[in-house]
Amino acid sequence: MSNDATPTPSAAPTGRDQYVIGVDYGTLSGRAVVVRVADGAELGTGVHEYRHAVMDTTLAATGAALPPEWALQDARDYVEVLQQAVPAAVAAAGIDPGDVIGIATDFTASTPLPVTADGTPLSFLDEWRENPHAYVKLWKHHAGQRQADRINALAAERGEAWLPRYGGLISSEWEFAKALQLLEEAPEVYAATDRWIEAADWIVWQLSGTYLRNACTAGYKGIYQDGAYPDRAFLAALNPDFAGFVDDKLAHEIGRLGQRAGGLTAEAAAWTGLPEGIAVAVGNVDAHVTAPAAQAVEPGQMVAIMGTSTCHVMNGATLAEVPGMCGVVDGGIVDGLYGYEAGQSGVGDIFAWYVKNQVPAQAFAAAEAAGTSIHQHLTDLAADRPVGDHGLLALDWHNGNRSVLVDTELSGLVLGMTLTTRPEEVYHALLESTAYGTRRIVEAFSESGVPVTEFIAAGGLIKNPVLMQIYSDVLRMPISTIASEQGPALGSAIHAAVAAGAYADVREAGAAMGSRTVAAYTPNPEAADAYDALYADYLQLHDYFGRGANDVMKRLKARRRAVRA
Amino acid sequence: MSNDATPTPSAAPTGRDQYVIGVDYGTLSGRAVVVRVADGAELGTGVHEYRHAVMDTTLAATGAALPPEWALQDARDYVEVLQQAVPAAVAAAGIDPGDVIGIATDFTASTPLPVTADGTPLSFLDEWRENPHAYVKLWKHHAGQRQADRINALAAERGEAWLPRYGGLISSEWEFAKALQLLEEAPEVYAATDRWIEAADWIVWQLSGTYLRNACTAGYKGIYQDGAYPDRAFLAALNPDFAGFVDDKLAHEIGRLGQRAGGLTAEAAAWTGLPEGIAVAVGNVDAHVTAPAAQAVEPGQMVAIMGTSTCHVMNGATLAEVPGMCGVVDGGIVDGLYGYEAGQSGVGDIFAWYVKNQVPAQAFAAAEAAGTSIHQHLTDLAADRPVGDHGLLALDWHNGNRSVLVDTELSGLVLGMTLTTRPEEVYHALLESTAYGTRRIVEAFSESGVPVTEFIAAGGLIKNPVLMQIYSDVLRMPISTIASEQGPALGSAIHAAVAAGAYADVREAGAAMGSRTVAAYTPNPEAADAYDALYADYLQLHDYFGRGANDVMKRLKARRRAVRA
Repeated sequence: MSNDATPTPSAAPTGRDQYVIGVDYGTLSGRAVVVRVADGAELGTGVHEYRHAVMDTTLAATGAALPPEWALQDARDYVEVLQQAVPAAVAAAGIDPGDVIGIATDFTASTPLPVTADGTPLSFLDEWRENPHAYVKLWKHHAGQRQADRINALAAERGEAWLPRYGGLISSEWEFAKALQLLEEAPEVYAATDRWIEAADWIVWQLSGTYLRNACTAGYKGIYQDGAYPDRAFLAALNPDFAGFVDDKLAHEIGRLGQRAGGLTAEAAAWTGLPEGIAVAVGNVDAHVTAPAAQAVEPGQMVAIMGTSTCHVMNGATLAEVPGMCGVVDGGIVDGLYGYEAGQSGVGDIFAWYVKNQVPAQAFAAAEAAGTSIHQHLTDLAADRPVGDHGLLALDWHNGNRSVLVDTELSGLVLGMTLTTRPEEVYHALLESTAYGTRRIVEAFSESGVPVTEFIAAGGLIKNPVLMQIYSDVLRMPISTIASEQGPALGSAIHAAVAAGAYADVREAGAAMGSRTVAAYTPNPEAADAYDALYADYLQLHDYFGRGANDVMKRLKARRRAVRA
Repeated sequence: MSNDATPTPSAAPTGRDQYVIGVDYGTLSGRAVVVRVADGAELGTGVHEYRHAVMDTTLAATGAALPPEWALQDARDYVEVLQQAVPAAVAAAGIDPGDVIGIATDFTASTPLPVTADGTPLSFLDEWRENPHAYVKLWKHHAGQRQADRINALAAERGEAWLPRYGGLISSEWEFAKALQLLEEAPEVYAATDRWIEAADWIVWQLSGTYLRNACTAGYKGIYQDGAYPDRAFLAALNPDFAGFVDDKLAHEIGRLGQRAGGLTAEAAAWTGLPEGIAVAVGNVDAHVTAPAAQAVEPGQMVAIMGTSTCHVMNGATLAEVPGMCGVVDGGIVDGLYGYEAGQSGVGDIFAWYVKNQVPAQAFAAAEAAGTSIHQHLTDLAADRPVGDHGLLALDWHNGNRSVLVDTELSGLVLGMTLTTRPEEVYHALLESTAYGTRRIVEAFSESGVPVTEFIAAGGLIKNPVLMQIYSDVLRMPISTIASEQGPALGSAIHAAVAAGAYADVREAGAAMGSRTVAAYTPNPEAADAYDALYADYLQLHDYFGRGANDVMKRLKARRRAVRA
C-alpha cells in the first residue's frame, strides 16, 4: 500500500529515472543494490563483510571463549554496511544519489539483541560490552535449546493455540528461547534490557529514527498470532521472572511489510550519502523478501530459496495448519495474505559435506582435468544415466528434518551400496533425496488445503541445471527460476519502492520490478514415472524412521551425546 | 587316519627330520610351503603367479571377449605351480628333498573343469581350446546364475531333502549350476566332457595318477549328501539332457580328507623334484583345510577365515540345520564329524571399496605423513573413541548376505550421518557392521544346537588388532588367532603328514603341527554392553530389510537391472 502522496514513477516530476536501494544483511556480509524503480534493473552493487563476522568461539571484546552452540554478532558491523556498501553501490551504479527515493532492508532471522529504551545495543555500553549476553544472538545461536525444549513441552501441555501455527515446534533460534536463555543465564543483562528487538527492526530504527516491529519477524519468530503474544500465565509458568517479558520488552507497534517506517534521518543520510527524508521501509527477512523479486506473491506460488538449506515461502488466501511448517503468519510475506514458511535444514550443506568427506582424490583430479568444479563434475558424471541406474536411495536428514517431521534428532541414510557403487552415484542419490524432501513438503501443503500451483526456485543452487531437472521430474511440476542473482536485495528494493509510494503495493511492485523464468524446467514424463516409484520408497523409509516405527536414529544420537558428555 | 604302516616321526628310520609339502592354490597364485612333520615349523615358501591369472574379460587363446560375470582359468597354470613353487620352497627351506614324505594341496572352490576320461582338460585339446566353456570355471564365475535360480526354485518346489543342508540355496558358483550352464550354452562341449571335476581333484590326479573326488568339495559344492547326489528325476526336470549328469560325468569314488590318494608319479616327481612314490593326499578346500592349522577341529571351534570375504568353518558332533549356512557335510572338514560352513560375502572387500570410493585425499595424505596404510590410519583415528561415539550404524551387505539371510539382492546401508560425520567414522561403522554380521551367524549356530564355544580368527584381517578387538567386544567372546600366516598351506601340509602316515589322523596332526594364540583378544565388558544395544539395532534393521518387511533393496536392484538392460 502507499503511505504518502509520492507520485508513481511515470509521473516523476523531473522526468528522470528514480531509484531505490535494497540492503540484504546476510550471515557474513551486507549487500546493497541500486535498483531502477520503473523496471527493477539492478544497476550497481556494494558488499561489505562484517569485521566481527560470526563470533562462535570467542568474544572479540575480551577474547573470552564462548560455550558450544553460541553464535554472536556485533551490531556496529550492520551500521558499517550502511556506511560502506550503500555508497559503493551508488557509485557502481553511476547514478545521482538525489534520484534515490527509498531504502529497505532485509535480515537474517531470528537475530535479536538487547537494547535500551533509545535503541542503543547494550553491547555498545561500557558496562556490558564484556558480557556475551549483551550482543546480537545470530540466527544460528542454538544455546537456548534447553529453553526451547521447555517452551515446547509447556505449550503442548497447555494446548496453546499458537503452537500448531509453527508446526508444533518453537525453535531455539527464535526470540522467546533466546530471551529466556538471557534471563536465566544473565539476569542482570536481562534486567538492563528495555527492548528485545530483531536486528531487522533495529537497523530500520537506525535509518529512520523510528522503532517499528515488522509483521514478518513478529509473526514467524515472535509468536505473534491473531493480535496477541503468548500470555503472562504461560510466561510465568516457564519462569516467574519471565512473566512480564512481552509486556515490558517485546510488545510494540507492528508495521506492515512495505509500509514506510519513517524518513531517512540526517545521521543515516550522512552514513549513506542518500537524501535525508527519503522513505525507509519496515524491516523484513531475507527469505520472505525474495518472493516479490521472483514475482511469486500470489497464493499457491511456492518460492524455494535453495542454498546450504532451503527455505520455502508461499502465500495462501486462507489460514491452514500444515504439518511441520515453520510458521503461518497473517501478512508475513505480503500484507493481506497468509504467509506460509517451511524448510529443509540441509540441502547444499549435505552436498558440501559429502564432497569434503566422502569424495576421493581421483574425482577431484578428473574435475580439474575437465576444468570444472567438483560439484559440477560429480553432477555431470551421473547426469545422463536413467533414473534408478545407481540403485541407491538416501534420506536427506544429515542436519535433521525441519518439515514435515520437525525432528532434529533424525540423521542421514544411504541405502543400496554395492561393491561397484561409485562416488558420483552416491552424490546423485543425495541430490535426489533433497528433491524427495521437497516433494514431501509440497504434498503436505496440498494435502492441507493450500495447494502449490507453481514452484519457483531461487538461491545459489539454481545454477545447477541437473539438480533443477531432478526437482522438476520428482515434483512432476515445471520449475520456474528467479531471474535475479540478488533476490533478497532486489526484494528489499521492491519494498523500498512501495514504501516510497512508487507502487500501490508489493504485488504491483513485484510484477513490475521482479522477474522469473516461467517453467524454465519441465518434467520428463518417463523420469517422473520412475521417480514416483522411488519416492514411494523414500516415503516408506521417511515414515519408518521418522514416525516412531524405528527410533534407531534417535538412539544413536542419544548414545553419541552420552559417550561424549 | 593312517593308511599304511609308515612310522611316526619320532621313529623316523634315519633319525633325520621329515618334511611335508603343502600347496595352496589361490585365486591368482599358488603357494608351496615346506613344513617339518614333527612340529609344523614352516621352513621355506615358494609362490608362483598364474600366467593367465583370472580370465574375466577376454579368453587368452583367442583374445575374444567374455560375457559379464565370467571368470575362467587355464589348468596349465596349476601344473606350473608344481614345477616352480614347490622346488623354490624346497630350495628356500634348505632341506634334502629326499626327506619329504608327502604332499597335499588345497584349492579355491567350487572351481570345476571339463576333462576327458584320462583327465585331460578339454582346453588342452586343439579341438576345444578356442571355446571358453572348455576352460576352468573359477569359483567367482557367476554366469550360471540363471541356472542356479532354476535349481533352487525346482528344489524348493520338490522339497528336495538336500536343500536345507545348504541353507536353502545352491550357489551359482557350484558344480551343478556351472555344469548346467555348460550344457545349455555349449552342448557340444558338454557332450565331449567325460568328467566334470573340481580343480582340487584334478591336481591330485596329476600328482598321483589317481582320480578320487574329495569329501569336502563333493559335499559342499557337489550336493553329495547321505551317500547320494540329486536324482535323475530332478535333473531331468531341470533339463532332459541333464538327466545323466551325475551318473555319466560326476559320480565317482570319494576320498576322505587326509586319506592317501596315491603315490607321487614319476612325472610329478620330475616336476617337483620330490621323491617318486611319496604320499599324495586327497584334495581339499582352502578354507576348510585351515581348521587343523589353527588347532580348531573340535566341535564348537569356529574358524573364521577373514579376508575379502569371510568363510566360517566349524565341526559339530551332530547334524543340524542351521539357517542360512552354506553347507553341512559329513566329514567335510575332518573325517568323523559334521563340517559346517557359513559365510559373509563381503568383509575386507567392503573396506577396500570404501577406501577406494569414499575416502578423501586428506586422509591418504595423513596416512602417508604418519607412515602407515590408509586402512591402518582410518582404523587408528577412531580406535580410541568410546563405542557409539560416531553415531552410525551400517549393514554389511554391499556384496549381498550369504548367511543367514542367503540373499544376493540385499545391499549396503549406512545410517546416522550428520554434517560433522568424518570418513574414519564411517569406516569404523563398516568394521563394526561386519562384526555384527558375524555375531548373527554365531547366534544362528548356537540357536540351532551347534553352539560356538571358541572363535578362532585366521586370514589377512587378523593383522588389524582394532578389528579383532571389535569382534571380541561384539561377540562378547575371546578371539583366538591362528599363529601361521600361511594357514591353508600349513593345513595342507598337515593333511600330507596324515596321508603319509606320520600321524593317526588330522586331529592328532593338527594338535602337533598347527598352532593358535588362545584368547589373543578378550572382550571389554563395557564395550560389550554398548555393543549389545547397537547389535539389537543392527538386528532390527537386518530383519526389517532382510526378511520382507521392506524389500526396497530388492526393488532398487531390480530397477537398476531393468534400466541397464
